Amino acid sequence: MPDTPDLLDRPDHADMAFNPIALALDLADDGEMRIRLEALHPADFSDYFEALTDGQREALVGRAPELITGELLAELEDEVVEDVLPLLEPDLIADALTELDSDDVTQIMEEMDAAQRRTVLDAMAPTERAGVEASLAFDDETIGRLMQREFVSAPEFWTVGDTIDHMREAGEELPDLFFNIYIVDPRLKPIGYVPVSKLMRAARDTTLSSLMIDVIRTIDQSLDQEEAAYLFEKYHLISAPVVDGQGRIVGMMTVDDILDIIQDENKEDILALAGVSEAGITDTALETVKSRAPWLLVNLATAILASLVIARFDYAIEQIVALAVLMPIVASMGGNAGTQALTVAVRSLAERDLTSATAWRAVRREGVSALIIGLIFAVAMAGIAFVWFGDARLAGVAFVAMIINHVFAGLAGILIPLGLKRAGADPAVSSSVFVTTVTDVVGFTAFLGFAALILL
Amino acid sequence: MPDTPDLLDRPDHADMAFNPIALALDLADDGEMRIRLEALHPADFSDYFEALTDGQREALVGRAPELITGELLAELEDEVVEDVLPLLEPDLIADALTELDSDDVTQIMEEMDAAQRRTVLDAMAPTERAGVEASLAFDDETIGRLMQREFVSAPEFWTVGDTIDHMREAGEELPDLFFNIYIVDPRLKPIGYVPVSKLMRAARDTTLSSLMIDVIRTIDQSLDQEEAAYLFEKYHLISAPVVDGQGRIVGMMTVDDILDIIQDENKEDILALAGVSEAGITDTALETVKSRAPWLLVNLATAILASLVIARFDYAIEQIVALAVLMPIVASMGGNAGTQALTVAVRSLAERDLTSATAWRAVRREGVSALIIGLIFAVAMAGIAFVWFGDARLAGVAFVAMIINHVFAGLAGILIPLGLKRAGADPAVSSSVFVTTVTDVVGFTAFLGFAALILL
Repeated sequence: MPDTPDLLDRPDHADMAFNPIALALDLADDGEMRIRLEALHPADFSDYFEALTDGQREALVGRAPELITGELLAELEDEVVEDVLPLLEPDLIADALTELDSDDVTQIMEEMDAAQRRTVLDAMAPTERAGVEASLAFDDETIGRLMQREFVSAPEFWTVGDTIDHMREAGEELPDLFFNIYIVDPRLKPIGYVPVSKLMRAARDTTLSSLMIDVIRTIDQSLDQEEAAYLFEKYHLISAPVVDGQGRIVGMMTVDDILDIIQDENKEDILALAGVSEAGITDTALETVKSRAPWLLVNLATAILASLVIARFDYAIEQIVALAVLMPIVASMGGNAGTQALTVAVRSLAERDLTSATAWRAVRREGVSALIIGLIFAVAMAGIAFVWFGDARLAGVAFVAMIINHVFAGLAGILIPLGLKRAGADPAVSSSVFVTTVTDVVGFTAFLGFAALILL
Repeated sequence: MPDTPDLLDRPDHADMAFNPIALALDLADDGEMRIRLEALHPADFSDYFEALTDGQREALVGRAPELITGELLAELEDEVVEDVLPLLEPDLIADALTELDSDDVTQIMEEMDAAQRRTVLDAMAPTERAGVEASLAFDDETIGRLMQREFVSAPEFWTVGDTIDHMREAGEELPDLFFNIYIVDPRLKPIGYVPVSKLMRAARDTTLSSLMIDVIRTIDQSLDQEEAAYLFEKYHLISAPVVDGQGRIVGMMTVDDILDIIQDENKEDILALAGVSEAGITDTALETVKSRAPWLLVNLATAILASLVIARFDYAIEQIVALAVLMPIVASMGGNAGTQALTVAVRSLAERDLTSATAWRAVRREGVSALIIGLIFAVAMAGIAFVWFGDARLAGVAFVAMIINHVFAGLAGILIPLGLKRAGADPAVSSSVFVTTVTDVVGFTAFLGFAALILL
């Protein structure tokens, strides 16, 4: 009887002491090593493989290249695929790829250099090669690149029996797994679909037209992956036919690939908001520096802007050092309030909750809530300033500065991402820096400016 | 011929001018209104419905309560369901719910108050009621609450023909859609599965045991939704059987529901990192204040901490006002570097890339890259200080403070989320405030402390 693996027993990356691949590599006998490792699920194998050192990876590939299956390559992180491919013979790669659906093949081919790609393509069967070349011709992150070219379609006049017989004969050309049969018109345009679970329950002589669900969401092959993911989410799609410019079916997308896209897009957004361009488990310290330094450099420039504001009022600070003590509070509160508004706006834009139609309502809500929050913390801040320095006028200055900074922070937090979106830029990537600049400059100007005006 | 809707033609929330429900409400004739609105996909209907005013919602429910279908309720945001349910008759709700799979029923029942829940449960068929009650007995966000109780299972000795005949007879008890048939042993433990697309291609006399894929991922009914989502993602699952404490199959989870969970968890993390407890499109300004003020209050406390540090060195600032001008740069750079490290760590924890086994490597990488980044920006900062104020010793102080602050920021950015995770807290929620406190306090102390030491 097969075992049911404990699902919480997850492999820990880089845990060499318990890495079954590293342990198997210690075995002198190649055959024994192979048997041990063949039992691993490709998803687990890939986790352990990613945790190996370069030397261990090379040793494994040298001793048992057949363990590098197409399924494993499909599971590995792109950076690791890039490292492993040069170790493999082109023929072996071409063989490994034949077992995969075309979307996985394309994804792996992306990681090859031009020369290796050429050699592997030459080793492929002509139809397979044509499909991969067609996919690679599409832009990165478009559906044409990501879709699989295998799908099941049938004309509406077929019966359930015809369809089942067709599928039994087709064999290899069919996708590994499929969930819907797309019903197409004579020009190959999708006009509906029949879920496999529905088809199977129907009598053999039922026509597909009587089973068909006649509203079908198609996805254009030039569509961006993020838009496609949104459609899957909104309409709870399990799979959708992909169509060309003329509306003819050319492939399909399935929800398991959409899951990966959604996670990639989410990761991109969350990192971008913090000013990190990318991050992976295999990153070196130098790659980490490269992914973070650019945004810190921009932040340095904006911090200098804030300093210039302070420098303009240095005579005020010289006379009232309490200003220097309190000013970081005003700036910090504004910065955080701005980040809150910004994050909500960026997320709402990603979820399509914030659109040009809802923008006005959202801006108004930010303005009102910023005013309320500003008032609350202005009272707190004035209280602190008064208790600390016993100066009512200083407290008054802090009060006014806090309100102004919060209102600017809230409005900048929503208007800047909206503006960037309208201008065609990614609001997640560039908003933070603009918002922080606004809150710093406004915060210091309001606080020190009023102080100079009123206290001196 | 059915039309293929243009998928990019999305409804914009709250766009009243083009809201087809609002437009249909203007029609005097109820029948005509109903016909217009029945053509909308539930996913679109729900978007438009959410954008209506309370008055419009009530008018619609009053004039055509049958438009509030189970499918619509399943699509609506929880807050909106909560508002709409009191407007509906219990019998109508019970009717609307019968068309749904049990997971959707549970989700809608969650939004009812105790009295309404009781009335609707009483109006349900006994078996359905029992299922809903069992689901509601599980904790929120566990699989027992979220799973559907309809699934297809079969013993391994059945043939394809047996299975198809069984499914044709079962009818209503089967789930709306399913993708796998779970093979169970006599004690109802899942021992494998057969994808429907594979079953359909096999001859009628083939036994299930010969088609069965004998590695099956089961999900425990007490598992947290986030853990379940991780399994779906990692193993590319389309559906998985849910088992009870004895390992017996009691339900199933499908990937379309997992998609919703993943988006919820991602939203929770991204908002938590910015110090926002929750956000929805229907939030009022007051709800916005409530979701943001608590974290701002904590931030106020930590900002005061930073101010206390500055106050300790007020004599230095009084003598050298350049310190007040430059100190926000040191703090801002440290804060941003800390946020970068923190965000990468929180995301890696969520993706299970950062585990106790990889922690050491990750901490070392953060330390090294923080040192490199610190050096780069220490040089920049020293240059700025020297050019601006022409003081080599001030430049030296800035140089040292910048390096120290960056190293602390990087280490705090990874050690704090790791520590919180180990302590069983959600690192996304509480890390930011600790990291910012560290960078502010360390930044100001290092800069002003060294300045006092060296310059005075």
